[in-house]
Amino acid sequence: MNVLKPSRCLLLLSMLLSTDIPTALTGKVLVFPLDGSHWVNMNLLIEDLHSRGHEVTVVRTASSWYIKEHSPHYKAITVTLSEPMNIENQDFFISFLSEMIEIQKHGGSPVAFMQFYWKMLKTLYGMHCHASQLVVEMFENPVLMKQLFEERYDLALIDPGLPPGVLVAHKLKLPVVYNVKWITSGEGHSVIAPSPVSYVPAALSQLPNRMSFGQRLKNIFYYVLNTCIDHFIVRPAYDKLVARYFGPETDFYHLLQGADIWLMRSDFVFEFPRPTMPNVVYIGGFQCKPSKPLPPELEEFVQGSGEHGVVVMTLGTLVKGLPSEITSEIAAGFAQLPQRVIWRHLGERPHNLGNNTLLVKWLPQNDLLGHPKTRAFVAHGGTNGIYEAIYHGVPVVGIPLLFDQFENMLRLKVRGVAKVLDVTKLDSQSFLTAVREVLEQPSYRDNMRRLSRLHKDQPVQPQDSALFWIEYVMRHKGAAHLRTDSYKMPWYSYHSLDVMAFLLAVVVAVGGAVVLTIRYLCFKLCTRQKSKRE
Amino acid sequence: MNVLKPSRCLLLLSMLLSTDIPTALTGKVLVFPLDGSHWVNMNLLIEDLHSRGHEVTVVRTASSWYIKEHSPHYKAITVTLSEPMNIENQDFFISFLSEMIEIQKHGGSPVAFMQFYWKMLKTLYGMHCHASQLVVEMFENPVLMKQLFEERYDLALIDPGLPPGVLVAHKLKLPVVYNVKWITSGEGHSVIAPSPVSYVPAALSQLPNRMSFGQRLKNIFYYVLNTCIDHFIVRPAYDKLVARYFGPETDFYHLLQGADIWLMRSDFVFEFPRPTMPNVVYIGGFQCKPSKPLPPELEEFVQGSGEHGVVVMTLGTLVKGLPSEITSEIAAGFAQLPQRVIWRHLGERPHNLGNNTLLVKWLPQNDLLGHPKTRAFVAHGGTNGIYEAIYHGVPVVGIPLLFDQFENMLRLKVRGVAKVLDVTKLDSQSFLTAVREVLEQPSYRDNMRRLSRLHKDQPVQPQDSALFWIEYVMRHKGAAHLRTDSYKMPWYSYHSLDVMAFLLAVVVAVGGAVVLTIRYLCFKLCTRQKSKRE
Repeated sequence: MNVLKPSRCLLLLSMLLSTDIPTALTGKVLVFPLDGSHWVNMNLLIEDLHSRGHEVTVVRTASSWYIKEHSPHYKAITVTLSEPMNIENQDFFISFLSEMIEIQKHGGSPVAFMQFYWKMLKTLYGMHCHASQLVVEMFENPVLMKQLFEERYDLALIDPGLPPGVLVAHKLKLPVVYNVKWITSGEGHSVIAPSPVSYVPAALSQLPNRMSFGQRLKNIFYYVLNTCIDHFIVRPAYDKLVARYFGPETDFYHLLQGADIWLMRSDFVFEFPRPTMPNVVYIGGFQCKPSKPLPPELEEFVQGSGEHGVVVMTLGTLVKGLPSEITSEIAAGFAQLPQRVIWRHLGERPHNLGNNTLLVKWLPQNDLLGHPKTRAFVAHGGTNGIYEAIYHGVPVVGIPLLFDQFENMLRLKVRGVAKVLDVTKLDSQSFLTAVREVLEQPSYRDNMRRLSRLHKDQPVQPQDSALFWIEYVMRHKGAAHLRTDSYKMPWYSYHSLDVMAFLLAVVVAVGGAVVLTIRYLCFKLCTRQKSKRE
Repeated sequence: MNVLKPSRCLLLLSMLLSTDIPTALTGKVLVFPLDGSHWVNMNLLIEDLHSRGHEVTVVRTASSWYIKEHSPHYKAITVTLSEPMNIENQDFFISFLSEMIEIQKHGGSPVAFMQFYWKMLKTLYGMHCHASQLVVEMFENPVLMKQLFEERYDLALIDPGLPPGVLVAHKLKLPVVYNVKWITSGEGHSVIAPSPVSYVPAALSQLPNRMSFGQRLKNIFYYVLNTCIDHFIVRPAYDKLVARYFGPETDFYHLLQGADIWLMRSDFVFEFPRPTMPNVVYIGGFQCKPSKPLPPELEEFVQGSGEHGVVVMTLGTLVKGLPSEITSEIAAGFAQLPQRVIWRHLGERPHNLGNNTLLVKWLPQNDLLGHPKTRAFVAHGGTNGIYEAIYHGVPVVGIPLLFDQFENMLRLKVRGVAKVLDVTKLDSQSFLTAVREVLEQPSYRDNMRRLSRLHKDQPVQPQDSALFWIEYVMRHKGAAHLRTDSYKMPWYSYHSLDVMAFLLAVVVAVGGAVVLTIRYLCFKLCTRQKSKRE
């Protein structure tokens, strides 16, 4: 191929000119975010909506961890819960994490597995029970509900990781857009798109997409497990509320599945290819931006690394989560590197910290990852950090700790852009070896740069896509033509079991009739021959 | 919502500025088009590629109907087949159509159904047998193959309605982009995306997406029929060639399913929502453009219609296809309208043509449909015409004749934008009633205008999207990360039947063991009690 001047710019300009531009509108958006790291990216969408002239109202709880009551970008509706949500509490997560690490130390024993799941399911159940309070507090507050009705919002923008907003939006008869990766009990796709167990790894299964027979067996186990979580953990928290506020004929999952557009925080440079639906829009990495210059002291530290460059480490919102014996091992590993290290760390300072390592309470993650001297990123595998690493083409050393972090890291590993460590077996030597491998084997960086190129090469950048589809739903008051109604079918009809049963019955009936006829004829024939012989 | 000045223009401009533009490249594209109406839209893509600096080579046969040897936009490679392809012959289609109409006149009788299908399958088989000659002629021509290898194309752009190009592209190891709606024996999605029979109507079934029990039963029948067509009509035409040129371990359907990007000539304002895959890009209506002024005489005729406006009729490439007794009925119907009529008609002039009706040999379809005086479109339901009608918001009177035209019209009918007629039962009165209904009931026009608004409101216009993804595949030498490998699994693994069988065996074995143990214990217990009693 030959390089030519008229670049993609021209194509984009022609898009601009050829588009039949509908009248632009500003609207009123009611947002139900999720606290913690999910808020970080929801807030970006809110800022964008605000800057485009939309009026944003955010529903938050009084005990919220990240979501502030006062913001220049939104009005807040604050609901006070009698029992604060566990996920709004950083300490809860940290103690949860310590317990999970403790359990995992006992390796792959069935008892440890059961304990791990029991703990996780208990936490999940607690989350949903707490979240369901929000529904009650809102529905039982006639003043608030009247106010919400009178505001005549144009759209509900919801993170359905916890679903109270879905019920409120249904009550207010609003079109719904999700900002989603996980939904209640699993990966978002699983509740609206066919997910063949033969090549779509179930949530939490930690399986790749190319599976052996044994792995496919394991995948079915996780598929059944997730279905059980849906039915026995998530449903019970909302079923009664749905029946109370919408009548017994309304199904909680139908409400959940009925969103107009799913803004999926996924991208197929990272996610395994899988079936999807027309109303799923991929916005993975929408929060990524070119890096800005670092603060002077940090820039000086980074430049001091010379040709070796720097390694960046952060565990996101779980920054305080690692026990001190693990942080010491990490510190010892870092100390042996020729690179400089910038480590976001709260809590006790490791005694064995090397001279090359700078501990910081906060770091400009995106600007550091985009710095030309950054060579590797040590991360837990939260989605935000992963997409920033992909965007800037920085290979990863993964220390997954909770939830989907294990499978996020698996996806990077399969693509040859990350070395993944087991936190329960981590020591200074294995840590050092892993970091060195990622730094020294060029394949990690080359592969990550390839992902970066693919990720950036999209006809519409994910953030623009998110805004376009939010406004699209406002313009057209929904997007029903992109959504199948299949979720409203009974499960046996959806899977065609009723038709199959009917066909089977016909086959049995016809087969039976044939057999009986043949028997009867044989009997007649035999008796005739017998009587003849006699 | 409030109207605001800063329109979507701003969003698109920000997309333009925020996009990290990769180096633009020009490449060499090898095109395998399909003759007839499919060529019309492939040719548009070719013109676009040419205007963007790409070098296009088109493979055509010496007997081609539409595809010219000389063009300013492409070089042609002409292959001479010993037996010309049936689809390259307009007369073949017209006599085929007459026979099909004759058969359909005998209504819904099983014999007529069998005749209908027998005729259609025979034609399909003939098409594939003829097409497979192209593979042989190319592969057995060492000079041509050497030339193709040496040209070092960057991409094969293929209409896989007939698949010879797929085999050639595989031989040349080229990345592949399809320009597709139908593939060999059915709708394009069916071979790569899960298509649950409970809500995805099978090709040719003429079923809607919301099906009753009986309709779902019928859908399974058509699903099985299509599978049989794959195995007994399409496969036999290519299997031996694939084995001869690629060895026995290569599967024809794997080659077919392995394209990098599927540019699907579909849009969900028209198509029922259904599962899709990450490498399917929707370009339905990419050929639509704002209308240009009409030629003066035509404009004068149209303006003369006054407030009543005009009705436009054309049957696309089947323009000569209707028998004269039907055209007379249509002419008689048209004559009673207060509107003026522009009718593209070749062949015998109906004796009863009204003064309001203008017969033309050719008409500027897009410009007429986009004319403010156009009130309705009488059409057979080819995809090109349907998308132009949607684009310009003109309601339709449908006279479907062949292939997918019946289900295309069904989709318009379900959306309340078309009245559909059965050509075998058509008389002047029923035709007049239908046209009047579409002209006089405002819902047809209102619904069509709504579809038009939805269709035009896309973040990237379909033509730009098509170009973007063709160039994307050239830039990255494929798009493997968007394509599942699931099609390479054996069918029993894909459907998890092996795992299910294993689980069933385990259940039976464990159940059997439990039953045997209980029996054994019972036996022991009984014998002990017996012996005690004795």
